[in-house]
Amino acid sequence: MTVKISHTADIQKFFEQAAGFTNDQGSPRLKRIIQRVLHDSAKLIEDLQISEDEFWQAVDYLNRLGGRGEAGLLVAGLGLEHFLDLLQDAKDAEAGLTGGTPRTIEGPLYVAGAPLAEGQVRMDDGSEEGVATVMFLEGQVLDPNGQPLAGATVDLWHANTRGTYSFFDQSQSEYNLRRRIVTDAEGRYRARSIVPSGYGCDPQGPTQECLDLLGRHGQRPAHVHFFISAPGHRHLTTQINLAGDKYLWDDFAYATRDGLVGEVEFREDGARGVAGRYAELKFDFQLQKAPDSDAEQRSGRPRALQQA
Amino acid sequence: MTVKISHTADIQKFFEQAAGFTNDQGSPRLKRIIQRVLHDSAKLIEDLQISEDEFWQAVDYLNRLGGRGEAGLLVAGLGLEHFLDLLQDAKDAEAGLTGGTPRTIEGPLYVAGAPLAEGQVRMDDGSEEGVATVMFLEGQVLDPNGQPLAGATVDLWHANTRGTYSFFDQSQSEYNLRRRIVTDAEGRYRARSIVPSGYGCDPQGPTQECLDLLGRHGQRPAHVHFFISAPGHRHLTTQINLAGDKYLWDDFAYATRDGLVGEVEFREDGARGVAGRYAELKFDFQLQKAPDSDAEQRSGRPRALQQA
Repeated sequence: MTVKISHTADIQKFFEQAAGFTNDQGSPRLKRIIQRVLHDSAKLIEDLQISEDEFWQAVDYLNRLGGRGEAGLLVAGLGLEHFLDLLQDAKDAEAGLTGGTPRTIEGPLYVAGAPLAEGQVRMDDGSEEGVATVMFLEGQVLDPNGQPLAGATVDLWHANTRGTYSFFDQSQSEYNLRRRIVTDAEGRYRARSIVPSGYGCDPQGPTQECLDLLGRHGQRPAHVHFFISAPGHRHLTTQINLAGDKYLWDDFAYATRDGLVGEVEFREDGARGVAGRYAELKFDFQLQKAPDSDAEQRSGRPRALQQA
Repeated sequence: MTVKISHTADIQKFFEQAAGFTNDQGSPRLKRIIQRVLHDSAKLIEDLQISEDEFWQAVDYLNRLGGRGEAGLLVAGLGLEHFLDLLQDAKDAEAGLTGGTPRTIEGPLYVAGAPLAEGQVRMDDGSEEGVATVMFLEGQVLDPNGQPLAGATVDLWHANTRGTYSFFDQSQSEYNLRRRIVTDAEGRYRARSIVPSGYGCDPQGPTQECLDLLGRHGQRPAHVHFFISAPGHRHLTTQINLAGDKYLWDDFAYATRDGLVGEVEFREDGARGVAGRYAELKFDFQLQKAPDSDAEQRSGRPRALQQA
């Protein structure tokens, strides 16, 4: 017989005490959240008959997960970050906030304060010349009526040919493959960069350790991340995921969505001043009107170099 | 109106996929646990209308918690470790496994491989002489019939006068205030040590940050930790919490229990070769019979220097 005690008045009272219900200091909101976490945790332990060893393995896992700073990677890999997008979509539908380019997950690898450029910029530092394929990435930012948005900020970041990101990969130069571009009078942004490779979780890291036990890989298709913002318009967090990548619809982070697939065209015509093969990727973004001024801003998620 | 989607077939299918139900690799047990964690997390997010900012603050908190290795401290402070004791007590009662000294939490500060002694030992390295009060800690380990258990192992550890533990406090000598004592023919253990001070969470650490928001302190009464084991008997994890401490019944980790309060007697009689004031603490432990050989061992919790 399964022994359960979490429903008893004694245990509920104990968790309320542990959550601080019996004092009048602190945050009533956090108290309510912690009380729920305690209740749910106890019920999970009882229902699934979690053993002592399993409980302490989980605690040790949390230490190792945080020790490597991978909590943001794990919530992406377990689909919780995508769930937040789906829930926000449902809330938007309920509120009649529809249209424009779909949102998708930010992921844990944004770095604030990338160099700012007007209209166009080169994103790569040239360190992978000869290895990387040059990529011209361009498009327009449009308003809900399809009119160009001048002065919008296109804040974009992507991996190098090894699938790693500057800042987190300290072998790359500062802000390599990270830029902010302010759109020109026609709402255009233009970047010369390199074709990124897909990202893969550190095979030795705790996220991949969990995925292995779930029988899952930890790979993403090649992709480019975007924050798009413009005064009066709703902030958009999204990505272009590259067509043809074997992980396009098998993304461990579930970020690929209809409307967010980018078609890369490869050319070898000597145009654009590039000798040999190069790539073109055209992608337009359409923003929604901001229902209020808060909606113009990205979330308050703690990020690298937040203060920059 | 609160928008909810976690009950829909689409989301449940999505979480089953994320938990690895759609492949035949990995661990079926972990898949089941993760699927439940995803379901409960999504429901909590919906029910409490967790904002994006709150979600990402929690993810950042997990990184900082693990970065400081405090996950074990947090589960003690939130009462989950004590809950595990209460649940095991209830299981024991159901199975008729009663009697003997009560169990209480291990806490996160055990270090394996402490020096082994026969019958008696000095535990402190003398570095706090003049500051600390000498303490003689002694007692018997008894079997379920109250008969002395010779050859039992008393593995004990406690804090110094500043409330810190060797190994985690690198300013202390190796294994200071940590010993294993094998009981003599009369089941006796004898330790000369110092009176410990209560433990307090690091005021700058993530556990105390959470407790602050719950309006709670992070202090423990002065106490001594014990693992008691003997062939054929059930492993016991417990503590003596010292009478008279202001936190005795206001322990942030909820470890004090009836039957686990130790009365310290202070003397100044020149006996025992100590000049001035010293303390005596007598405490006997009674073990249960082991229902099986697994029960003779402590849990498989990952611990410092586990391999030692």
